[in-house]
Amino acid sequence: MSCAALAKPMGQTDKSNRQIVLASRPVGAPTQAVFRTERRAVPVAGHGEMLLRTVYLSLDPYMRGRMNDAPSYVPPIGLGEVMGGSTVSRVVASNLPRYRVGDWVLGTSGWQDYALSDGTTANVVEGLKHPSWALGVLGMPGLTAYVGLLDIGRPARGETVVVAAATGAVGSIVGQIAKRKGCHVVGVAGGVEKCRSAKEDLGLDDCVDHRGDDLPRRLRAACPKGIDVYFESVGGAVFDAVMPLLNLGARVPLCGLISHYNDSAPPPGPDRLPLLMGTLLRRRITVQGFIVSDYYVARHAAFAEDMAAWLAEGSVRYREDVVLGLENAPAAMIGLLEGKNFGKLVVRVGPD
Amino acid sequence: MSCAALAKPMGQTDKSNRQIVLASRPVGAPTQAVFRTERRAVPVAGHGEMLLRTVYLSLDPYMRGRMNDAPSYVPPIGLGEVMGGSTVSRVVASNLPRYRVGDWVLGTSGWQDYALSDGTTANVVEGLKHPSWALGVLGMPGLTAYVGLLDIGRPARGETVVVAAATGAVGSIVGQIAKRKGCHVVGVAGGVEKCRSAKEDLGLDDCVDHRGDDLPRRLRAACPKGIDVYFESVGGAVFDAVMPLLNLGARVPLCGLISHYNDSAPPPGPDRLPLLMGTLLRRRITVQGFIVSDYYVARHAAFAEDMAAWLAEGSVRYREDVVLGLENAPAAMIGLLEGKNFGKLVVRVGPD
Repeated sequence: MSCAALAKPMGQTDKSNRQIVLASRPVGAPTQAVFRTERRAVPVAGHGEMLLRTVYLSLDPYMRGRMNDAPSYVPPIGLGEVMGGSTVSRVVASNLPRYRVGDWVLGTSGWQDYALSDGTTANVVEGLKHPSWALGVLGMPGLTAYVGLLDIGRPARGETVVVAAATGAVGSIVGQIAKRKGCHVVGVAGGVEKCRSAKEDLGLDDCVDHRGDDLPRRLRAACPKGIDVYFESVGGAVFDAVMPLLNLGARVPLCGLISHYNDSAPPPGPDRLPLLMGTLLRRRITVQGFIVSDYYVARHAAFAEDMAAWLAEGSVRYREDVVLGLENAPAAMIGLLEGKNFGKLVVRVGPD
Repeated sequence: MSCAALAKPMGQTDKSNRQIVLASRPVGAPTQAVFRTERRAVPVAGHGEMLLRTVYLSLDPYMRGRMNDAPSYVPPIGLGEVMGGSTVSRVVASNLPRYRVGDWVLGTSGWQDYALSDGTTANVVEGLKHPSWALGVLGMPGLTAYVGLLDIGRPARGETVVVAAATGAVGSIVGQIAKRKGCHVVGVAGGVEKCRSAKEDLGLDDCVDHRGDDLPRRLRAACPKGIDVYFESVGGAVFDAVMPLLNLGARVPLCGLISHYNDSAPPPGPDRLPLLMGTLLRRRITVQGFIVSDYYVARHAAFAEDMAAWLAEGSVRYREDVVLGLENAPAAMIGLLEGKNFGKLVVRVGPD
């Protein structure tokens, strides 16, 4: 794939730096109007800096939280600021001894063609057949699945594991690791095609389409022994179907609640907070919210070694949903929150 | 204290066996009408049995759950069945080689003067200066406090620990262990006198009266660094005040929800289940429901050794609320659910 061939459809040039900034804070589901594209000069690397050209931009559900002006595990994006995000870039110019022109770098350039970096949040990714995988199965979503399932979920052979968003960036890895562990693994996904893929491509024992009628009944039928581990990233109707099926001693690693990210007000009553607490009490359930960044130091090395081996042996398969062109990032982000992506969502911003 | 002196006010004789049975299932708060007293013959120990005479009966919040016909961590009591409960008894007659007449036995005779036992749920309690303490600080409530705080709460020196029902059977032990661990310990209790005692007798740093106005504001003032461990046994307005103060990485051991036990319907909306899950996610909080019976094998020996030492050195103090006479058990149980007891509630059923 040559530079020239891809340059035009992706719109990336060396003449200017397209930036997508947060124009206004969304209320409910974001629309195109909350984003604005600006063109700036390509910055020049000063002393102790390097210039990165974005090749891949990762789109992830947590970004919706950063669009609100509310405290969360990552600080909000300011109005007029470039949308943040992890990126895989090429080094275009470098005044840093550890980085050479042409290196592939995993960084945090955000939604733009070019960014300066002092190297503190950039790591060279070497020897990857697919550099973009550093944003997915070999990166943050992969580690999220790994520590969430293994360290918090702690599934034992023969237990039933249910995974929400079963074909998504995190969920697809969770399900496959749980199968490797000898569990009965049931996915929940949106649509017939995703459910087919969860079974046929990812090898799950079953997958329940949350868009169909009577989700609670169908999930119950798929989990005849109840649920020992529920890997939660969705919330809403999926959690409501899961809750009555949780077994004594169940574990609920909680890394996201995508179905609620666009909520602008709490849903109507009755108030089920006491019901949830009562369920946790009576069935001795553990719910643990976690964020992957707490686990890099302790667990990244083991994760990287295991995941590389699992990919090589074929016991973990990985699917990307690649959107072409930075200009399509807003629509892709809006679609991500609606469950439209199929696999890990990345934007191809520029040519290799 | 002689047998004769106490026999009359407690009404226990060797002529008959008073039994308090569940007459009907309560809807909401139980009333006297849900209990019925029956008089039966004192049973006779057959082969492989012993006869126990109840001296102390423990009243505990979990008993409310057993009065409902709903699955929980202990099975429901059937209509017409004797109310269950832990007891400290004397062996009156024994056809079991391990038990001798006169032994003090911790068992499960329930709300009655006499019960047969085959020894499977009975343990001789030896050498206790206060045999009734086997129902409290040295028994189930003490172990609940010990494993809930130390194994699940895992408080570190300097962290803020908040304990609900701070002068209750479990909470009073939790608070004192947390003080031994070097934590900033804030109790929540009902009434000025309980709060005074939590500070002066138990040594807590502060105690907030949940019956006063504006609990959230007063709790916030008592926890200027937020809350790292919340030991939950209450729910309701206390949890509502705690939730916004929980710090990143907070732990919530959950052993009870007494404020909800009389609920006959969920409270009105909005539905705060998503708010709770979102809070757990954003602040990486762990909520873990637990039941003490899961911990006896692994932790009872360490608990018994530690607690005996702490009582001996005076770093843990213990207060009982002793109600005289089996006939007063129903009123005491109703009062327990209203927070009327002050310390561990036990019924003195018969003389030593």
